[in-house]
Formats: sequence, structure tokens, C-alpha cells
Amino acid sequence: MEILHFATDTTPTVLTDTGQIPEDGLIWVDFCRDEAQHWECWAEPLIGVPIEPQHVADSHNPTHPSFFDGTLDYDMLMFQGLGPRDRLFPLETRTAAFFMFERVLITIHAADNVSMSLARKKMLEGRGKPPDSVLKIAHTVLDTMVDRFLKIREPLDAYFTELQDELLDPASKTDDWRTLLAGRRMVRKLEWLSENQLEAIDAWRRGTRSDWSANEEVRMRDLSEHVDRLLDHARDQERDIESAVQLHFSSVTHHTNKIVQTLTVLSAIFFPLTLITGIYGMNFENMPELHWRYGYFFALGLLVSIGGALLYLFKRRGFF
Amino acid sequence: MEILHFATDTTPTVLTDTGQIPEDGLIWVDFCRDEAQHWECWAEPLIGVPIEPQHVADSHNPTHPSFFDGTLDYDMLMFQGLGPRDRLFPLETRTAAFFMFERVLITIHAADNVSMSLARKKMLEGRGKPPDSVLKIAHTVLDTMVDRFLKIREPLDAYFTELQDELLDPASKTDDWRTLLAGRRMVRKLEWLSENQLEAIDAWRRGTRSDWSANEEVRMRDLSEHVDRLLDHARDQERDIESAVQLHFSSVTHHTNKIVQTLTVLSAIFFPLTLITGIYGMNFENMPELHWRYGYFFALGLLVSIGGALLYLFKRRGFF
Amino acid sequence: MEILHFATDTTPTVLTDTGQIPEDGLIWVDFCRDEAQHWECWAEPLIGVPIEPQHVADSHNPTHPSFFDGTLDYDMLMFQGLGPRDRLFPLETRTAAFFMFERVLITIHAADNVSMSLARKKMLEGRGKPPDSVLKIAHTVLDTMVDRFLKIREPLDAYFTELQDELLDPASKTDDWRTLLAGRRMVRKLEWLSENQLEAIDAWRRGTRSDWSANEEVRMRDLSEHVDRLLDHARDQERDIESAVQLHFSSVTHHTNKIVQTLTVLSAIFFPLTLITGIYGMNFENMPELHWRYGYFFALGLLVSIGGALLYLFKRRGFF
Amino acid sequence: MEILHFATDTTPTVLTDTGQIPEDGLIWVDFCRDEAQHWECWAEPLIGVPIEPQHVADSHNPTHPSFFDGTLDYDMLMFQGLGPRDRLFPLETRTAAFFMFERVLITIHAADNVSMSLARKKMLEGRGKPPDSVLKIAHTVLDTMVDRFLKIREPLDAYFTELQDELLDPASKTDDWRTLLAGRRMVRKLEWLSENQLEAIDAWRRGTRSDWSANEEVRMRDLSEHVDRLLDHARDQERDIESAVQLHFSSVTHHTNKIVQTLTVLSAIFFPLTLITGIYGMNFENMPELHWRYGYFFALGLLVSIGGALLYLFKRRGFF
Amino acid sequence: MEILHFATDTTPTVLTDTGQIPEDGLIWVDFCRDEAQHWECWAEPLIGVPIEPQHVADSHNPTHPSFFDGTLDYDMLMFQGLGPRDRLFPLETRTAAFFMFERVLITIHAADNVSMSLARKKMLEGRGKPPDSVLKIAHTVLDTMVDRFLKIREPLDAYFTELQDELLDPASKTDDWRTLLAGRRMVRKLEWLSENQLEAIDAWRRGTRSDWSANEEVRMRDLSEHVDRLLDHARDQERDIESAVQLHFSSVTHHTNKIVQTLTVLSAIFFPLTLITGIYGMNFENMPELHWRYGYFFALGLLVSIGGALLYLFKRRGFF
Ligand SMILES: [Mg+2]
Ligand SMILES: [Mg+2]
Ligand SMILES: [Mg+2]
Ligand SMILES: [Mg+2]
Ligand SMILES: [Mg+2]
Ligand SMILES: [Mg+2]
Ligand SMILES: [Mg+2]
Ligand SMILES: [Mg+2]
Ligand SMILES: [Mg+2]
Ligand SMILES: [Mg+2]
Ligand SMILES: [Mg+2]
Ligand SMILES: [Mg+2]
Ligand SMILES: [Mg+2]
Ligand SMILES: [Mg+2]
Ligand SMILES: [Mg+2]
Ligand SMILES: [Mg+2]
Ligand SMILES: [Mg+2]
Ligand SMILES: [Mg+2]
Ligand SMILES: [Mg+2]
Ligand SMILES: [Mg+2]
Ligand SMILES: [Mg+2]
Ligand SMILES: [Mg+2]
Ligand SMILES: [Mg+2]
Ligand SMILES: [Mg+2]
Ligand SMILES: [Mg+2]
Ligand SMILES: [Mg+2]
Ligand SMILES: [Mg+2]
Ligand SMILES: [Mg+2]
Ligand SMILES: [Mg+2]
Repeated sequence: MEILHFATDTTPTVLTDTGQIPEDGLIWVDFCRDEAQHWECWAEPLIGVPIEPQHVADSHNPTHPSFFDGTLDYDMLMFQGLGPRDRLFPLETRTAAFFMFERVLITIHAADNVSMSLARKKMLEGRGKPPDSVLKIAHTVLDTMVDRFLKIREPLDAYFTELQDELLDPASKTDDWRTLLAGRRMVRKLEWLSENQLEAIDAWRRGTRSDWSANEEVRMRDLSEHVDRLLDHARDQERDIESAVQLHFSSVTHHTNKIVQTLTVLSAIFFPLTLITGIYGMNFENMPELHWRYGYFFALGLLVSIGGALLYLFKRRGFF
Repeated sequence: MEILHFATDTTPTVLTDTGQIPEDGLIWVDFCRDEAQHWECWAEPLIGVPIEPQHVADSHNPTHPSFFDGTLDYDMLMFQGLGPRDRLFPLETRTAAFFMFERVLITIHAADNVSMSLARKKMLEGRGKPPDSVLKIAHTVLDTMVDRFLKIREPLDAYFTELQDELLDPASKTDDWRTLLAGRRMVRKLEWLSENQLEAIDAWRRGTRSDWSANEEVRMRDLSEHVDRLLDHARDQERDIESAVQLHFSSVTHHTNKIVQTLTVLSAIFFPLTLITGIYGMNFENMPELHWRYGYFFALGLLVSIGGALLYLFKRRGFF
Repeated sequence: MEILHFATDTTPTVLTDTGQIPEDGLIWVDFCRDEAQHWECWAEPLIGVPIEPQHVADSHNPTHPSFFDGTLDYDMLMFQGLGPRDRLFPLETRTAAFFMFERVLITIHAADNVSMSLARKKMLEGRGKPPDSVLKIAHTVLDTMVDRFLKIREPLDAYFTELQDELLDPASKTDDWRTLLAGRRMVRKLEWLSENQLEAIDAWRRGTRSDWSANEEVRMRDLSEHVDRLLDHARDQERDIESAVQLHFSSVTHHTNKIVQTLTVLSAIFFPLTLITGIYGMNFENMPELHWRYGYFFALGLLVSIGGALLYLFKRRGFF
Repeated sequence: MEILHFATDTTPTVLTDTGQIPEDGLIWVDFCRDEAQHWECWAEPLIGVPIEPQHVADSHNPTHPSFFDGTLDYDMLMFQGLGPRDRLFPLETRTAAFFMFERVLITIHAADNVSMSLARKKMLEGRGKPPDSVLKIAHTVLDTMVDRFLKIREPLDAYFTELQDELLDPASKTDDWRTLLAGRRMVRKLEWLSENQLEAIDAWRRGTRSDWSANEEVRMRDLSEHVDRLLDHARDQERDIESAVQLHFSSVTHHTNKIVQTLTVLSAIFFPLTLITGIYGMNFENMPELHWRYGYFFALGLLVSIGGALLYLFKRRGFF
Repeated sequence: MEILHFATDTTPTVLTDTGQIPEDGLIWVDFCRDEAQHWECWAEPLIGVPIEPQHVADSHNPTHPSFFDGTLDYDMLMFQGLGPRDRLFPLETRTAAFFMFERVLITIHAADNVSMSLARKKMLEGRGKPPDSVLKIAHTVLDTMVDRFLKIREPLDAYFTELQDELLDPASKTDDWRTLLAGRRMVRKLEWLSENQLEAIDAWRRGTRSDWSANEEVRMRDLSEHVDRLLDHARDQERDIESAVQLHFSSVTHHTNKIVQTLTVLSAIFFPLTLITGIYGMNFENMPELHWRYGYFFALGLLVSIGGALLYLFKRRGFF
């Protein structure tokens, strides 16, 4: 548990006395989920507002989908962001809970939540305009969470481009369908995540207990627009994966086609030749050609002529 | 029929006199559907409110989809939950009917409805805050029903993961399409169930005759969110099944391709060799090679050379 | 033309004098479409309300889709129901027109409309509570129409289950795609019908000139819910048919695969054997093996060994 | 340019003086698009209302999609209808522009717009009730346009039924995919046209400057319903075409399957027979069977037995 | 940076003094994005309105999707248009930012933004009615941007028609799937662009701080309708590409079918002929036919008869 105190227009200070809340300015109480098993027992007497048991239960769920719910006394936002390692496989997520009271913001986050630390550091260093409302503190954290999400678009693109190129390269022998499909599953999870984020922000706008100032509205719409961009990117990615699948099927079908054609051409050439040797291999007594002086060479010539003619014919028709 | 009486702020008591209703507190009358053939004849005089014939007819339907309807005097909710055995195949459902009057909740459930018993037991043991409205009693039952539903996500995942792994394992010879498709049908039924639950809760919120308190609103949104999670899970599951189908088709097509290639390579190697033996099996009188001392060995050498050269060629081209 | 008179709280009576309308109670005038070519000329002076020409034109269309339209003086509902024979192929429909005035209901139906007769009979026999509004008379007819629709779900299920089982049975030789696709077309028509019914009831609720009583609202929502169940069933049915199509394609592809594999195995076994007989069928003078005492048996042994070894190899690899 | 004057309750008269507008009744000014290059210069002073340049530009576009736009002074409707020839390929369209002022309707149409002439003729002959508002004149034209559209449903059905039957007939050798796909493109254009018509009528209802009378509302809803029927028909048609495509693919796949099976059966029968003749064609000195008296006939019998047994086996397994 | 001053009803003049703003008329300040790194520092004191940091950040993003956001003091519109070269591959876009204050329009555009120059030139030359509001200046630019977009419909059509014709031409040997799929990706980007443009215009209409005049409403609806036409065209294009893909698959499958058929016919003809030569190539002592005078010619006749009969049979069955 860490408490930041935002007095008017100055850099925030870290409070060490956790048993009391300053009478002026804004307060941000940040819990690590492990140490927050009974955070409501600490918070309710200090703030003087009861917290719904359902909301407390939600705040303990480390994989809760993005979700907003509000009461007359406070707004609650669950926001599911990227895990600590920025890595793509498996896509890890961390859900942070935001409880926004009149002057107090309480956040509950995973021990390894990177965005929370980044945002706190940014504020402690006095970067950006000092917040004049609880929502602006929360916005700074959310903005950091969404920014980290937006940044995975580039590695994602690089990853899929390589995967698709390898899959569609005729020279390559890898046939790595499972990886591509695992990638599609991840992209769908991204879509689902950003859709839920959008829905939660939207529900927040419609259901908030505090009237947002014009400036707060601008910030939240900007946040939505950034999430929407991630969503559009994920949808695009998914359609490209579908296209790669379709293209691969097309090329396999085409390849099979070529092979069957080759087989047919081979048969069409060798079947008649073999028949001719079969004919002159028969043991009839009276077979005039067998006694011709150049019968054998005539037969060889016949084989070469027929084979050559058929080859020429098939070549001209573009069969191989 | 079992009647529970909730006096203010105490554990409920079971009423044995069914001919009368206490003048204070909340009452929950719980009917088993088998014994509830004329429950409205019992209820109307005691509560003093007429019940719509359409609603009575609905309450007797054990497979009625989730549905809300309200009048000026009471709210009716049909809620379709999981059957008693938690088993996946066939997916059994039980629909419970909730009639919510001013101070009285009447429920009609199947004889083997597990959730109803669990919720009643929980209340009789005094777990949780005592309800101060009929809606909160109903919410406790609904919450139990939805929780049981959410718990089937894990066995469902395990089941489909195993099924897909087996189907896609090249070593395995099972080709168990029917089971997978039966599973998809079940997942679709789950989707349909949770969509209808969401619609019913939503219609309830919009159409309820009683104004919900802030705390009741929070509970119902929490309930909706839990159902929505089940819905999202089922949709995800369905898309994964589609992917498995696609992957299987891909691998079958690929396999056919490989086999046809092998056939073509075999033909391309043996056709010319057989032609050569055919040529030297012809019976022409004048065939010089036949009289060469090492003609036979020359022919054998020819066969080995050509066969080997073709093998080498195809190997280098990666044909097998 | 048949006129029923509903005096307060009694069984209706059939009026024989068609030139006049009783001053009290409700009146239901039921026209057969054949005899109703100028029904508006009869109705307008008696009721004292002009009827829109567009509505009259609609009422003469025996296959008009379900549709609601209202004016300040009356509500018009076109409702497309099941034809007289309950049979599935071809799916026959009958559209009935309902004109609902203050005290008068005018219906125009096909000569063989079963639902209309059933509803009239039910009312004349005094079953059900006597209607106290024109809408309740109409509801009784609509309820009968929808009930007949709901009952075709069972034969529909039976029909498609049999069709699919036959199609997917490997033993069966029928390949009855056309019937299945005709069935899908029928299911789509069912979907279209129930969607239009839902839309029409919904438009009626929003656009009716009379304020519906609470009891009338309950009845109409119940009606909607029944139609919605038919719609959900039809959608489910359609998806099952798609699944059957997919499954059949899968099994055909799999079967082709097996056959091509067999062909390849045959070639792989017989090509080398035939080559060996070709070699010992060559006519070279100097072929030592030919003069061995047991050369022939050695060759036979060679054929059997190679053939057996290949068979064993392919068997072990699971090729047949 | 042709001007019709509708005095109250009489048949309209054709005005010849185009420099002035009667002070009473309704006026319909009908421009042919070729002669209407500066129609607004003529109209603005006479009507006393400025016309938006964007609207004038739209009115000159002969292929403008259906579209409504309104100002405080007038309603503008672009309505895209069927071309003059009722023919299906290529589907020709004509867009007519309607400008509806207080008492004046201005229409701009293509030189060969059939519907406009039909509607004018109908009014001049005094058929139908005389219009008492500008909207009713416009409705008469629109109704004619939509009626002509509805009439192409029958030739469309006939056309596609024939095309599909031919394509799916196994005896027919045509493989006329391109025509079917061209047909699908046309059906999609129909869908697009009727969707836009619906949207335009809907935008008109929501955005009109004049309050529509109850009777006008009825007429416009009737118009919408007719367009909606065309839309539903086109969607149905499109799905049927998809089905035909699927069915064709199924039958081609099935056919290939049968052919490959035949090839396999041929190989399975002839490979062993050819091997036997190869064996007895070998030139070993010591081959006892060759010296048997009936060795040859024994060999022939062997060939016939094996061939017959294999044939019987394959026949019994249903392989051909 | 270029400043245009629009005094009432005259052609605009270019201002050279950038440190001050005229007290009357409208002002358009046009920044090139490269030189606009701190445009807000210049603008805020002159206009007297603070600009949101999020909006400034957006205005620097050269590939920001179309987006509207408004405050009480100004409207901000990001509009993504076509790049400078009108070329299709790769589809280049340029996003222009519009900040609309009471009397001042600030635009930030890419250095090579063509539309902006075209619009400025048009206004400086006094073409069109002089604008009487900031929105009308912006509309002139947006209209130019959308017009350039609409013009790529024709080259797009030509491009895809050629590509599809080549792909589907059986004579052509190109199999240019990648190009077609790249085209589809571009068409999807077009769809996405115009969808976002429509959404942005729509959000503008709903969220603008200034009440739009009737004439401004007409202009913006006209703009929307033009974008919607592009969107419809792109959707159409995409569906046509899907059709071409499907048609190609169909023709490949059909072609494979034909080849396999040919192979089967070849086998069916040559297998029995080869068997006959094998039979008469056996070395039995007692083979009567071998000693017939015309045995050889009888055998040749047999070969020809059987071969001819089979050929005739297959020809009649339409197998080749
Ligand atoms: Mg969503
Ligand atoms: Mg959701
Ligand atoms: Mg933004
Ligand atoms: Mg969006
Ligand atoms: Mg978007
Ligand atoms: Mg939804
Ligand atoms: Mg639903
Ligand atoms: Mg929750
Ligand atoms: Mg949802
Ligand atoms: Mg969801
Ligand atoms: Mg619908
Ligand atoms: Mg409809
Ligand atoms: Mg019901
Ligand atoms: Mg439903
Ligand atoms: Mg529904
Ligand atoms: Mg629905
Ligand atoms: Mg549309
Ligand atoms: Mg549109
Ligand atoms: Mg109609
Ligand atoms: Mg519609
Ligand atoms: Mg619709
Ligand atoms: Mg419709
Ligand atoms: Mg969208
Ligand atoms: Mg959209
Ligand atoms: Mg968007
Ligand atoms: Mg949308
Ligand atoms: Mg326009
Ligand atoms: Mg649109
Ligand atoms: Mg559109």
C-alpha cells in the first residue's frame, strides 16, 4: 500500500502515515493485490463510504474483464491491460481495479503491474500538468496502460508478416499451421480485450456519478480513440491471417493439380510405348516384322517417334 | 411447498402453517413443479393479487427459455439454469419461475433443481447479509444458478482441448467428427442460454415494477457481467472448434497431396525401367545387344543407372 | 361472412342480420377472402369510419407478409400463418387480415384457413374468459395461429434428423443433397415468416391507437415470446443443416484420400514385381540366372519376398 | 418541360404558359433532364425559394443513389428506379429527382423514364382520387416506380431457376459459372438499390418539413413495405445462388471421387493379372509349368479366376 | 504558414503579417505539419482560447484516422484523405487536422497535401460563393478531399477488372493470387477509411459547438452521401474479388477433375491391351494360338477391336 497526496498545483508527496487522510487535495491509495485482502476494512472508515461486496469481490479477481460499475458514492472501473513482459506468447493480461471517490482514488493492481509503476513515477517526477480531479489521476494510469498496448502493434505485425511469408514461401518446407492458428487466437483475444475496454469506458461515460469537465471528456474520448485503433488493427490482422490461410489452400490445391497432370502425362507417354514392346514380345510363330532385317531398329524408331510426338504435343499444350 | 419467513435482520424460519401469511417481514414460497399444478389458486387469495393465466401456463413449462414479464402487481422471471448433474452431454437445463410480489417471492422449480436447494440452505444457515427485499432473495438464487453455470467452463475447456488434440494428432487414427460437432451444438446451446439470460435480466431491469435500490442495481449488473463472461467463453469455444475443423481439413488435403506425389514419383521411376525390359524382351531376330557378351549386365546397369538417377533427381527436388 | 356478437360476459351469438350492428358489446365480422371483394363498401357505412384504399388492397393479397399499419380510427394487422395441411413440403402459408375498430373486429381470411375456424369454435363453445375488447378476440385467433406454427417444430426435427442420418450414414448410398437444400430453403422461409411476425407485433405495440391494458400487454408479449421460440428453433435448425453439409464434405474428402492411398500402395507393390518379371523376360543370350537349376524358384521367391516385405511395411505404417 | 395544374377535386389540366404559376391548386412541373440544365433559374423566381447548389448538382446526376435531403423550404428526394426496358441484363436504372415545395412539385427525370409517363397519364385520365397535396402527386409517381420494380421478381425467378437447373443437371455439359456470378452481381445491385430506397423513404419520413397527414403516412408505409418485399426477395435469391454454387461443388467433388475409385479398381484388377503373364513370360530354363500339357489353359484359368474374384469382391463392396 | 483573410463577400486576400489577426471577417491559417511543431503557442494568445494537449498531439500524427472531437471553444476534425499521387499501390493517405474557432480556421496538413492547395487556389480565384462561416471554408477543403477519393473508383475498377480477367482466363498462365489479395487488402483499407470518415462527420454533426445553418447542414449531408458512395463501391469491389477467388477455385477443381478423368480413361484402355500382349508373351509349350497361321494378326485385330471399342464407349459417355 502506497499513498500519494496531491496538494493543489504541486508535485505529489508520498504519505507514510496510513491511518489518516489529509483534509485537502487529492489522495491516491495504491494497493498491491496480494496485500489488499481486506482493503475495504481499511478504506470504509477513512472515507466514510460503504463499498459494495460485489465490487470488493471483483477487485480481487486478477483476470476480471474490463468492466465499469457505479454507485451514488463512487465509480468502479476494472481495466484489463498488458502483462509485465510485453511478450506476445502467451499474451498475459493484468486487471487493475479503480475505485474513484470524491477526493480519493483507490487502485488494486497485480504485484508485477508495470503501467501502475510507470504512471506513479511520472507523477512523482512532476511530468505533465498536476491533476485537479481523481479522474485525471486515473486517466494518467489508463493512458499508460493503453499506450503499452498500442506499442505491441509493431512486433505483432513483424511476427505475422514473417510467419505468413514463411508459410507461403514455396521453397520453405515448414507447414506451421498450429503457430498461425495460435496467433489468430491471440489476435482474437486482443480484439476481445479492446472491445471490453471500449465498452467499459463507454459505460463509465454514461454511468459516472461525477459530471466530467470538458477537459476530462476530451481526455476520455482520446483514450477511447486509442483503444479503437488497437481494435481496428487487431481486426485487420485477423482478416490478413484468414487471407493467408486461403492463399495457402489455393497453392496446395494448385500444386496437387500440377502433380496429377505430370502423372497423367507420364502415363500417356509410357502406356503406348510399353504396349508396342508387349506386342513384339509375343511368341506367335508367324510375325513377319520379327524377321525383317531392321525390324528391331524400326521398332526402336517407332518408340522414339511416338514418345517424341507425344512429348512435343504435351509440351505445346503447356502440360509440363 | 416450503415457506420461509424472513423477519427483519434475523435468520429465516420455516413456516409450517401454509394457510396464512405473516403480516411482517418477507416470505419465500418455494413450489416443486410437480406439486404446483394449481399454485395460483393457493396464492391469489393469500396475496390478494390476480395472476395472469399466460404466466401460470409459462410457470408449468419445464423448458421455457429465460424470459421476463411484468405487470403492475408483480414481476415474473423465467430463468433457465443448469440441470442437476453438472454433466456436459447431454446438456440438461432446468427452468425456474420467479414471481415477485411486494413482500412475497413465489418460486416454481423442478424436483431435482440443485441451485434452489443450495440457495435455501445458505439462507437458513444465515450466511450472507439478511435480505431486505424480495429481489435480494431472488438474487441469491439467481447468483447460485449462474455460479454453477460459470463452473462448467473448466470441464468444457478440458473436454474440447482433449477432443481437438486427439483429432489433430497425426498418430491418432480416430476421426471423431460427430463428437466434435455434437460439442459445437452444445456450445451453441450454451450461447443461446446465456443470451436469453442476459436478455431476460435486461428486460427485468427495464420493466420492473419496483424501483431497484442502488445496491440492488449493483447486484444485478454483477449478475449480468457473470452471464456475459459465460457468453464470451462459449463464443470463443465455438470459434476454436471452427479452427480445429479448418486445421483438420488442411492436414487431410496436405496428406493427400503427399500421397499423390509419391504415386507420381513411383510411376516416373518404374515406367521407363519397365519399358527397357520390354524392349529387350521383344523377339526380333536381329537385335545386336542380345548377343553381346555382357549385354544383360549392360541392361541391368542401364536399369540401375536410370533408376538411381531418377531417385537422386526426385530426392534433390524434395519429392519424397 | 359470419358475424359474432359478444355481449358482456356471456358466450357469443351468431348474428344472421348482416345489415345492422348491435349497439352494445363487441362484434367480430369474419369474411372469407373470396366473398370479400367489396367488404369495405359494406363496412364503412355501418362502422362510420373510412378505410384506406392501400389497406383494402393489402387485405386482398393472400400471400402478404406479416405487417402492421394503423390510422387514428383503426389498427390493421396482416398476419401470415401456416396453411391448412400442417405439411412441410411445400410449406404453405395463409395471410389473415385484421381490422380492429372501437367495438368491431373485421377479419379477412382464406377459405381454408384452419386457425380462424378453430378460434371461432373455441369462443362459441365458451372456452376461455369472454373477451372484453376487440384486441382480445384478435389475440385468441393469433394465439391459435402461432400455436399451430409451434407444433411443426417436432415433425421438422424428426424430418431433418432422418435426412441427416441417412446422408451421413456411410452404408447408405443416397446422396440426397437436393432434398436437404430444399429443406434449408424451407427453414429460411420459416425464419423469414417468424421475423416478420415479430416485427409486425412489435410495430403494433408501438403504433396501436388504443391503449393496451396491462392484461393485453401480457398477452401480446406472451405471443411474441412464442414466435421468438419458433425463430430460435428455425435458426438452430439451419445451423445444424450447415453442419451436416460440412460433415458430409469432410467424409467425402476423407474417403477420396483413403482410395488414393490404396492406389499408391498397389502401385508401390506391383511396379517392382512387374519389373523383375520384365528383367527375366529379356532375351539376352548370356543371362546366367536363366540357366540355374532353381533360377525360376529363386525368382518366384524374390517376388514373394519383395511383395511380402512391402505389404508388411505398408501394413505397419497403417496405409491400409 | 410539362406543367400540370391540379385544381381542387378535378382532373388536372396541362398548362402551356410556362412563365407563370396559377394562384390556386397544386402544380407539377416535370423536366426532362436533357432540357433541365438550368431549371433552377426558371424555378427560383416563380416559387420564390432559393434552391441549394448541392441539390441542383444532385438532380443532374442520372445515376445518383436514392437519397433524401430537406431544407426549411422544400424536400428533395432522389429515387433510383428501373430503366425503360424491364430487361435484366444489364440492369439499367434511372434516377428521378423530386423537389417538393408548398404547392409545387418539380421532377427531373431521364428522357426515357417510363414510370413518370405512366403516372402522368394515369392522373390526366382522372384515375384514382385527385391529389390534395404535393406529396400525393409524388407518391403516385413513386408507387408506379416501385410497382415496376416488384414486377421483375417473376422473370428474375424464372431466369435463375433455369440457370441453376442447367448448371446442376448432370446431363448438361454447360458449366456457366460466369453467367451465374453475373446474376449474383445483379441481385446484389438490386439489394443495394432497394436498401437505399428504404433508407431514403425513411430519411424523408424523419426529415420532412411538412407534417404528413394520417393518410399520407399510410401511403408511405405501404410504399416502404413494397420496397421491403423486393429487398427480402433479392436476399432470398442471393442465398439460393450461394446454395447452387455449394451444390455444384459438392457434385464435382463427388464425381472426382467416383472416377478415382474406378481407376483404383482397374489397377487392383489388372496389376496382378499382368504380373502373372510376366511370370510365365520369364525365360528360365527350368520352369515346370511351361511344359505341362494344359499349363497355358491353367494360366488362362488363373487369370480369369483372379480377375473374376476381384471383380466380384469390388462389386460386392459397391466400388463400381 | 499561410493566412487567408475572408472579408464579407469578396475574394480572400493573403495576409503577410502573421503576428496579428484582423478584427472582422473570417481567417484561415494553414500550417504545413513540418513547420507546425508549436503552432498552439502561436495560436492560443492570438485567438484567446486554450487548446487541449491531446488535440495538439493528434494534430501532429500524420496517419491519424478520421476523428472528430469538440470542446466548448472549438471543433477539431481529423480527416484522412488520399495521398498526393492518386496511385493505387501502395495506397497512401494524408491526414489533415481542422481546428474551427468562432472566426478562425486552423488547418495542419502534410507538405505534399494536394487537396489543401487545390481548395486554397479555388478560393483565391473567387470560384464559388464566398464563405460566410468557418465551417464553409472547411467544407470546401473536405469536398475537394472527398472528390479526389471518388475519382479513384474508375482506375480501381479498371485495375481489378483486368486482374480478374487475367486470373480467370484459361489461356493465361499467370496465377497472380498475391496481387489480387494485396488488392483486397487495399479495398479493405478504403472501406475502413470511408467508414471512419463517415463516423467522423457524423460525430461532428452530433457534437459541434456551433449551430449549423440549414445551408451548412445540406452541405455536410451531401459530403456524407459522397463518402457513403465510396464506401458502397469499396464493399461491392470486395465482394467481386471474393467471387473471383471462388470462381478460380471452381475452375481449378474442374480442371483437376478433367485430368484425373483422362488418366482413368488411358488406364482403362491400355491395361487390357497390355494384358493381352502379356498373355501371348508367355512361354508355355502348348499354346495353340501361337501356331495359327494368322494368330499374330488375330491378336493385333483383338488389340485394335478392344482399344477401338473402349475408345468409342468412353467417347460416347463424354469422358474426353
Ligand atoms: Mg462487445
Ligand atoms: Mg461485453
Ligand atoms: Mg486521439
Ligand atoms: Mg468504433
Ligand atoms: Mg473502428
Ligand atoms: Mg451483444
Ligand atoms: Mg436472443
Ligand atoms: Mg462482476
Ligand atoms: Mg454482451
Ligand atoms: Mg462481451
Ligand atoms: Mg427483420
Ligand atoms: Mg420486414
Ligand atoms: Mg411465454
Ligand atoms: Mg431469441
Ligand atoms: Mg429475441
Ligand atoms: Mg434477437
Ligand atoms: Mg444501407
Ligand atoms: Mg446509404
Ligand atoms: Mg402493403
Ligand atoms: Mg427491413
Ligand atoms: Mg433490418
Ligand atoms: Mg424484411
Ligand atoms: Mg464501427
Ligand atoms: Mg459503421
Ligand atoms: Mg472507427
Ligand atoms: Mg455500427
Ligand atoms: Mg449528394
Ligand atoms: Mg451507410
Ligand atoms: Mg450505403
